[in-house]
Amino acid sequence: MSTLPSISMIGLGNLGWNLAKKLSEKGLHIARIMAESNEENQNFAESINTQLCSDYHDFTKEELVFVCVRDHQVSDVLDELRDRTLWSVHTSGSIPIGSASAKNIGVFYPFQTFKKSYDAQWHDVPIFIETRDSALDKVLYTIGSTLGAKPMPLNSSQRKQIHIAGVVGSNFTNHLLHLIDKEITSKDLPLDLIKPLVFETMRKAFDIGPEEAQTGPAVRGDNDVIDDHLNYLESSKDLQEVYRHLSTSIQALHS
Amino acid sequence: MSTLPSISMIGLGNLGWNLAKKLSEKGLHIARIMAESNEENQNFAESINTQLCSDYHDFTKEELVFVCVRDHQVSDVLDELRDRTLWSVHTSGSIPIGSASAKNIGVFYPFQTFKKSYDAQWHDVPIFIETRDSALDKVLYTIGSTLGAKPMPLNSSQRKQIHIAGVVGSNFTNHLLHLIDKEITSKDLPLDLIKPLVFETMRKAFDIGPEEAQTGPAVRGDNDVIDDHLNYLESSKDLQEVYRHLSTSIQALHS
Repeated sequence: MSTLPSISMIGLGNLGWNLAKKLSEKGLHIARIMAESNEENQNFAESINTQLCSDYHDFTKEELVFVCVRDHQVSDVLDELRDRTLWSVHTSGSIPIGSASAKNIGVFYPFQTFKKSYDAQWHDVPIFIETRDSALDKVLYTIGSTLGAKPMPLNSSQRKQIHIAGVVGSNFTNHLLHLIDKEITSKDLPLDLIKPLVFETMRKAFDIGPEEAQTGPAVRGDNDVIDDHLNYLESSKDLQEVYRHLSTSIQALHS
Repeated sequence: MSTLPSISMIGLGNLGWNLAKKLSEKGLHIARIMAESNEENQNFAESINTQLCSDYHDFTKEELVFVCVRDHQVSDVLDELRDRTLWSVHTSGSIPIGSASAKNIGVFYPFQTFKKSYDAQWHDVPIFIETRDSALDKVLYTIGSTLGAKPMPLNSSQRKQIHIAGVVGSNFTNHLLHLIDKEITSKDLPLDLIKPLVFETMRKAFDIGPEEAQTGPAVRGDNDVIDDHLNYLESSKDLQEVYRHLSTSIQALHS
């Protein structure tokens, strides 16, 4: 399959904004985006030479529609699109592909963290693809490769598994940085002090494996340091609780 | 101060090994290292053209000695060295500089994660320095700069603060990767799948700040996804507990 169908989209949240922008940068024109018609969205649509729409009737049987809405809305949106589009493809890590009768439904789940108005990296990013139609499969692989990412197959059960890993590896690690930021900036120490340490931690973990890479008072069994830190954090209850919980978790895993 | 004193060291653990290796690579000769005389340490000493020793009497009044031992041993080692060396400098994030009478004692705390036999990055790494002697201060700044790092002053109270941040940002983030590794490799998914996501998460957090960068089901209030993930993790109790705890922590901080 060498020609791609017309591409449209629903939703301009964190993922939708990034997907639309990158598709456009890579020369894939977006026919229309269904999203609220506010100034921000209008300006964005104009910047990538597409138009906003507001009605499911605007989509056609010639279009592949990427569904980039909140998880709890996906099912309803797919129902609306079922007989209107060539293919409807959702982008969620949490939603199974659905009933076997819906052959024109697919999944295109970029395993990345996205924030609206912040250009995400796509290079080498896994995009997990699930379809029940080999023609759609080929189209989604072509689009994924065009983005510079790494499309690969993953079934719905594995997708939930990797989505959980993504929450832990991205949302939770970011939260740890947020707790640190709150703590040290209150003592006039800038967060950037911790940047080389954080990147080195990740480099080492992927180089030699996180089990072998583990260091620190918890894995050393240095309970005096842990107790001292917990006492120090008496006035930062949120960080204190996380410190206590994760130290216990490290010791349990390494015991 | 342009000439450096003779440099020696005590301890060849994760930090000692890395500090000795980098000092040597940067052309700073190490006179002797006090460490167990086993084959591994002998080979290492030979590789950096130094010798092992086993007795505090081997150190002299002409030497600066870096003390790279476990936190609970630092105090005893400094006592042994007190009247023997020119300067004794510990490398711990947890130990205060000590009594005001000990002018020949200093602190040189590289804010990095170290593992024996794994060459750590030193470039731009903050090294927190505390002394009560301006001559020692200059020497430690010179050594820190020679390593390619960023020496800067920090008092004992701030050092404890930043050490806690280091435990959270390094030991805890590594532990999250360990939990992920354990979970997904049991489902035949390789840990490397998560590498682009983790590095992008860090890039974004330092670019726009972790509060603004936070994404995921917890900050969205998507409790259906959280409950679904917790059910799925019923057979992985350690990860389930961490997932529950950190989701609650995110929601508390963003509420």
